[in-house]
Amino acid sequence: MLSLWVIDEAVQRALAEDVGKGDLTSNALIPEDAHTEGVIYSKDSGVLAGMPVARRVFERLDPEVEIEEELKDGSMLAPGSVIARIRGRARAVLTGERTALNFLQRLSGIATATADLVKIIEGTRASLVDTRKTTPGLRLLEKYAVRVGGGCNHRLGLDDGVLIKDNHIKAAGSIAEAVRCAKKHIPHTIKIEVEVESIEQLYEALEAGADIIMLDNMSPSQMREAVRITAGRVPLEASGGIDKETIREVAESGVDLISVGAVTHSARALDISLDIGEMKRFSR
Amino acid sequence: MLSLWVIDEAVQRALAEDVGKGDLTSNALIPEDAHTEGVIYSKDSGVLAGMPVARRVFERLDPEVEIEEELKDGSMLAPGSVIARIRGRARAVLTGERTALNFLQRLSGIATATADLVKIIEGTRASLVDTRKTTPGLRLLEKYAVRVGGGCNHRLGLDDGVLIKDNHIKAAGSIAEAVRCAKKHIPHTIKIEVEVESIEQLYEALEAGADIIMLDNMSPSQMREAVRITAGRVPLEASGGIDKETIREVAESGVDLISVGAVTHSARALDISLDIGEMKRFSR
Amino acid sequence: MLSLWVIDEAVQRALAEDVGKGDLTSNALIPEDAHTEGVIYSKDSGVLAGMPVARRVFERLDPEVEIEEELKDGSMLAPGSVIARIRGRARAVLTGERTALNFLQRLSGIATATADLVKIIEGTRASLVDTRKTTPGLRLLEKYAVRVGGGCNHRLGLDDGVLIKDNHIKAAGSIAEAVRCAKKHIPHTIKIEVEVESIEQLYEALEAGADIIMLDNMSPSQMREAVRITAGRVPLEASGGIDKETIREVAESGVDLISVGAVTHSARALDISLDIGEMKRFSR
Amino acid sequence: MLSLWVIDEAVQRALAEDVGKGDLTSNALIPEDAHTEGVIYSKDSGVLAGMPVARRVFERLDPEVEIEEELKDGSMLAPGSVIARIRGRARAVLTGERTALNFLQRLSGIATATADLVKIIEGTRASLVDTRKTTPGLRLLEKYAVRVGGGCNHRLGLDDGVLIKDNHIKAAGSIAEAVRCAKKHIPHTIKIEVEVESIEQLYEALEAGADIIMLDNMSPSQMREAVRITAGRVPLEASGGIDKETIREVAESGVDLISVGAVTHSARALDISLDIGEMKRFSR
Amino acid sequence: MLSLWVIDEAVQRALAEDVGKGDLTSNALIPEDAHTEGVIYSKDSGVLAGMPVARRVFERLDPEVEIEEELKDGSMLAPGSVIARIRGRARAVLTGERTALNFLQRLSGIATATADLVKIIEGTRASLVDTRKTTPGLRLLEKYAVRVGGGCNHRLGLDDGVLIKDNHIKAAGSIAEAVRCAKKHIPHTIKIEVEVESIEQLYEALEAGADIIMLDNMSPSQMREAVRITAGRVPLEASGGIDKETIREVAESGVDLISVGAVTHSARALDISLDIGEMKRFSR
Amino acid sequence: MLSLWVIDEAVQRALAEDVGKGDLTSNALIPEDAHTEGVIYSKDSGVLAGMPVARRVFERLDPEVEIEEELKDGSMLAPGSVIARIRGRARAVLTGERTALNFLQRLSGIATATADLVKIIEGTRASLVDTRKTTPGLRLLEKYAVRVGGGCNHRLGLDDGVLIKDNHIKAAGSIAEAVRCAKKHIPHTIKIEVEVESIEQLYEALEAGADIIMLDNMSPSQMREAVRITAGRVPLEASGGIDKETIREVAESGVDLISVGAVTHSARALDISLDIGEMKRFSR
Repeated sequence: MLSLWVIDEAVQRALAEDVGKGDLTSNALIPEDAHTEGVIYSKDSGVLAGMPVARRVFERLDPEVEIEEELKDGSMLAPGSVIARIRGRARAVLTGERTALNFLQRLSGIATATADLVKIIEGTRASLVDTRKTTPGLRLLEKYAVRVGGGCNHRLGLDDGVLIKDNHIKAAGSIAEAVRCAKKHIPHTIKIEVEVESIEQLYEALEAGADIIMLDNMSPSQMREAVRITAGRVPLEASGGIDKETIREVAESGVDLISVGAVTHSARALDISLDIGEMKRFSR
Repeated sequence: MLSLWVIDEAVQRALAEDVGKGDLTSNALIPEDAHTEGVIYSKDSGVLAGMPVARRVFERLDPEVEIEEELKDGSMLAPGSVIARIRGRARAVLTGERTALNFLQRLSGIATATADLVKIIEGTRASLVDTRKTTPGLRLLEKYAVRVGGGCNHRLGLDDGVLIKDNHIKAAGSIAEAVRCAKKHIPHTIKIEVEVESIEQLYEALEAGADIIMLDNMSPSQMREAVRITAGRVPLEASGGIDKETIREVAESGVDLISVGAVTHSARALDISLDIGEMKRFSR
Repeated sequence: MLSLWVIDEAVQRALAEDVGKGDLTSNALIPEDAHTEGVIYSKDSGVLAGMPVARRVFERLDPEVEIEEELKDGSMLAPGSVIARIRGRARAVLTGERTALNFLQRLSGIATATADLVKIIEGTRASLVDTRKTTPGLRLLEKYAVRVGGGCNHRLGLDDGVLIKDNHIKAAGSIAEAVRCAKKHIPHTIKIEVEVESIEQLYEALEAGADIIMLDNMSPSQMREAVRITAGRVPLEASGGIDKETIREVAESGVDLISVGAVTHSARALDISLDIGEMKRFSR
Repeated sequence: MLSLWVIDEAVQRALAEDVGKGDLTSNALIPEDAHTEGVIYSKDSGVLAGMPVARRVFERLDPEVEIEEELKDGSMLAPGSVIARIRGRARAVLTGERTALNFLQRLSGIATATADLVKIIEGTRASLVDTRKTTPGLRLLEKYAVRVGGGCNHRLGLDDGVLIKDNHIKAAGSIAEAVRCAKKHIPHTIKIEVEVESIEQLYEALEAGADIIMLDNMSPSQMREAVRITAGRVPLEASGGIDKETIREVAESGVDLISVGAVTHSARALDISLDIGEMKRFSR
Repeated sequence: MLSLWVIDEAVQRALAEDVGKGDLTSNALIPEDAHTEGVIYSKDSGVLAGMPVARRVFERLDPEVEIEEELKDGSMLAPGSVIARIRGRARAVLTGERTALNFLQRLSGIATATADLVKIIEGTRASLVDTRKTTPGLRLLEKYAVRVGGGCNHRLGLDDGVLIKDNHIKAAGSIAEAVRCAKKHIPHTIKIEVEVESIEQLYEALEAGADIIMLDNMSPSQMREAVRITAGRVPLEASGGIDKETIREVAESGVDLISVGAVTHSARALDISLDIGEMKRFSR
Repeated sequence: MLSLWVIDEAVQRALAEDVGKGDLTSNALIPEDAHTEGVIYSKDSGVLAGMPVARRVFERLDPEVEIEEELKDGSMLAPGSVIARIRGRARAVLTGERTALNFLQRLSGIATATADLVKIIEGTRASLVDTRKTTPGLRLLEKYAVRVGGGCNHRLGLDDGVLIKDNHIKAAGSIAEAVRCAKKHIPHTIKIEVEVESIEQLYEALEAGADIIMLDNMSPSQMREAVRITAGRVPLEASGGIDKETIREVAESGVDLISVGAVTHSARALDISLDIGEMKRFSR
């Protein structure tokens, strides 16, 4: 679900950034033919995400590295959980360690933050969706981590979804005109979502033929009214400052989607480590 | 201090990722010649970082956009602080909004987290330094944000600094041999830092001629002993799970440097917004 | 509507391909300071498309070239129509001539082929849409030319639209299951289009909740029946071997969209030329 | 004859353009381990070209795909001809289908258009050559297709051949001066071709020592006179608006080369399809 | 004569390599608004080449740098000759200094080595030409320096010239067959050069219709015989271990071209320096 | 010690430059299935460097080429020394020949020039180090060749070492202030080197706490005095116009490092050849 070239591009950039002209320490101290084994394990609780990325970090440094995954992305982690075993040239293992962990810790952090919220809204009709508040350069990886954590993806960028906000409405003159104009210019395969800030605007958006309506910064009671008015004609998305404390009430209002930027922009990195064993030298 | 091409590369990648084939909504709804003004302001308290990056986001979308900075990187932000005013083609402002804010929120979050810790250790001899636990692809920007927050930078990557860790020591046989070997193979312009886990290893590293010694996961009392033993001959760096609660005691042990990964890997994004004003159409 | 970086990427690649190590002939024979004027004009009838691309070809070779557009994209061309006047360094004009014309001829050819079909279906409810049968590497430019010719765009690629075809249905087990599964995995902002080959499948797709239905290779009478059954609940798209001879009857069946691959894959290039005037040398 | 990196660059660009962030439909509906077989076959008559390119499309999506070519580039196709069989992961086959066919249809179209003209001039001394009127970004692939169709290549770009046209002559002052100047500045390994528009200019070009002479838009009788005058001293190339109707008479004039832009700029795409069989799931 | 993008690509690569993550020293010590003036001057005798490249180094670091060229490429240099004056931000001048000089010293070294040989063969009919023995990545710049020094260029690469060597002849079976085969497959705009090692092979090459003949490692007396036999029918190129001592005798044999690899592969860098004046700070 | 991606980037660029659109001669004359064997051997005396680069040239042209190294980098070469044997497709061998040799000759030339100087200073305490006077685009390869020749590397670029020169001192006001300021802004892992031109400045630099001191253009007697004053507190580097004639005396002054730019900027290419054997055709 995460195409190899997306992974490769991110991995190559990360290695170029970290390894650059070469790992001075390992190149000086680790014999070229030394081999070792390592264990990637968790020191934290959460949801694993990013193993295909971590794997590529090592594979790019040495195509002969062998990685045995004990756990797949989406697995629950507890302190001590063994995630993967890695065997190969010691230089590749040591040089790739930090970059692989940086990906793993961040993506697992996002999956964990997502899963926490998804659990809270269990049993309601609402799905958790992400936003465009992602780390520049890592959007597709971070959106993948959201899926791993049980969330759904909102549009991937400005080019595969339409979200008409207040400034677009002002420019078009009215919600009706904005929707009409969008339908005319945009591929018919893409839905038109409209952001509304009041019940009045909700009526306008429904009438205008919006395919999805985002309720921006509404109170739970306004949301309940919006759900009642809409009566299932189009999906409703709640948005704006929703967190652990408030999400259950939002979900119980009956909205279909709840978008939360914090799962990507402020997730805490999960604490994941790589333990490296003895080094052996042998000719292959 | 942040070279333009580092900024440009990150900005170009971020825009490619977000805008891709084009901003469907703005292209459909905002007239090509509409102009507008916007205000970037803070909804949060902290330290501003990232304005040169945010500026480039808009400039790449429209070289004629004008950005007037009310505050420079390093300024203190309070809720309501006006950061910058932006004037230009409405399409450029709307299309760039999210990408610019993503950079600004993340980098200001890092500067703020750094400044919080720097403040706590004020008056001690210790400097706060960062680690390689940065977001893949954003290292130079994030290390810049650490400097803006009053921290110092550790090595930028594996290619401009030497840090001899336990595995390198095992491979070399001893600390003495590892240092000797590193001195032989590495440009003489780069210092040799050795990570030690005990007072015994500290003695070995001092004797071996290490240029810097990292005290890994030592208790404050061990650190004090290390400081006493070293007696200023080489700088000492404290490292390992240091946080808000423990950093003051660490600093008071007399170490020279304290490295904290959390300032980059788990900083909370600062809440920063862009308010867009009316749109006007005029021929230029 | 065509972002500058899409144009620039195509132009840079085309110039690298054609000019490569340098224009041997012009560099040898045209003085560096010679200036000239040229006129781009049509020798053919049709619709103009591609001027922003042609303009960039010359601007990249010499930023000081001046191009005055007599006609904008979308204008009707007749033999002799003057499209643009160009003034600047003679080397830039001569070196860029072929590349600029290659873009202009091809894109105008596509706009013209599109406009021809759009005209035939005038007065019906059907819109003409394009397909993914575009020239590798030029999709966004060619889709732009379709819009210039009065057509609409289908999805831009596999990543911004969903089209469930027979093989996807086979893999999922049934249309119902395929739609259900797609709705679960795909961003909620994107519509689900299903390709059907029979009236029976049409019923299934309607029931499954498809957002759009493509009628693949149906006869006009089948299409009419499909229109009657669907009764406006979702848009219907006619597809498969439709050409000048058959498109009017297809449009009169009442379908909403007609997709035709030939407007991009087999359009005849329009005959457009550049007439270069006298060369003058002057110091600037 | 078509180097792998030329193919790879075109394929990578085409896949990036079409697949982008991922094939939404296939990723959602086709199990990751599903395998299938497909048959590429022709629905048209003509000459096959582009199999090495189509092959790479699938190989880049899945290096384990197996492609068995029943026909090689240059083979004659009739409706129903089986071109190749493909076995591999169903996702790779479905995702690559359109891109592979886009290349195959376009390149086979060019080979076919070329072969049609080559056949008409059979038995004369003339060779058919292409021009620089190729699709921007695909020149080397399209020139390869011309060779597959039995044509020869003119210069590949402005950097590997010299063609002195009217504007170059004006700038130099005379044909004699232009040839003299070109011989002085251009690597001695490259021939000097001069475009002439009259018998008078032909005499000048011969005298000036042109290595090749292009007869621009001459009538067949003028061409015959040019052939008689030149008497084999240098090759003559006929150029300008030559088509199926006129090419035989041109060829019989005795010229050595006939260049026709339409074989690349306006070739009709050949109708080629991919039939995909059942999907099977098995663990590998 | 050296296109801007060739220069820019080389300059960008060189700066990325040298400046990388930033000029630590200048960024730390030179105020951002400090300005300075510098003088580029020669400490050596020779021919200047590379000013357009050196200029771009500074311009890329700061577009506002002003460079006043006192001497143009091709000028004679003596110890003390002032080449150019540069004014601008001190950081840009200091950061670019080494990269600019590296280009200037190397290219001027090549121009000088070329001019030395050209002078020796003055008055003969022979031109000096270069080879493909250039520094990987700098071919077009180095071939430009050869032209600046008064030499001519041989083919730029394997794709714009044909040189049939012994191994090609062995593969084809004979010189006659090799030439016949090359004429059939290669664009008619490119000449066929054949390398011969004996007078016997020379006869074969002449008969086969070679356009140019390279005399490989022949003695001057063999060359004289070759010149007599060829009698001006095709150009003759002398090649193989020719140096300052032997080149005059080679030239006097009557050959048309003499190729010497040493002018690019072993030229001594010219000693050129940059003197930087006082720094001034002012607001702009 | 030379990472594969550094090699690959240089090789790819070199092949793109030389082979470009294709090797016209070999593609026309060498059958696609012809195989051959070649021998790389030296015609010169010196030190071999660059085999991993030469190997990649052939491997990129044909992954199935087999290269058997008779000698490793660092081996002594005499006229006739066999360096490697190569077996594979004849086209790959012929097309790659020149590019592979260009790398090998240049890098071996640098290793040889380095080894010559290293030998002269044998028995002294001084190490030979390189400078930033390398060929633009080849720095890491050339610095590798210096190591192969027995030299050591100075900083790789402006971003991994600090060298405070006269202009930096002027800008900072004094050596003391420059060192203080550098220590404040630069990662603590990097040493501060100061260039001094007099004994007076040496005292200042020592007092300021410089980590390394470069003695710029001092006479041997000044150097001896500097060594006496410094008394081993920091390493001393001699620099400026040192050559074969003067280096022994410099080394005997007691300095720790001697930097010589000529080993990279003016090394003579070593004469290395590739002898290609018979061609055989067989199906694989």
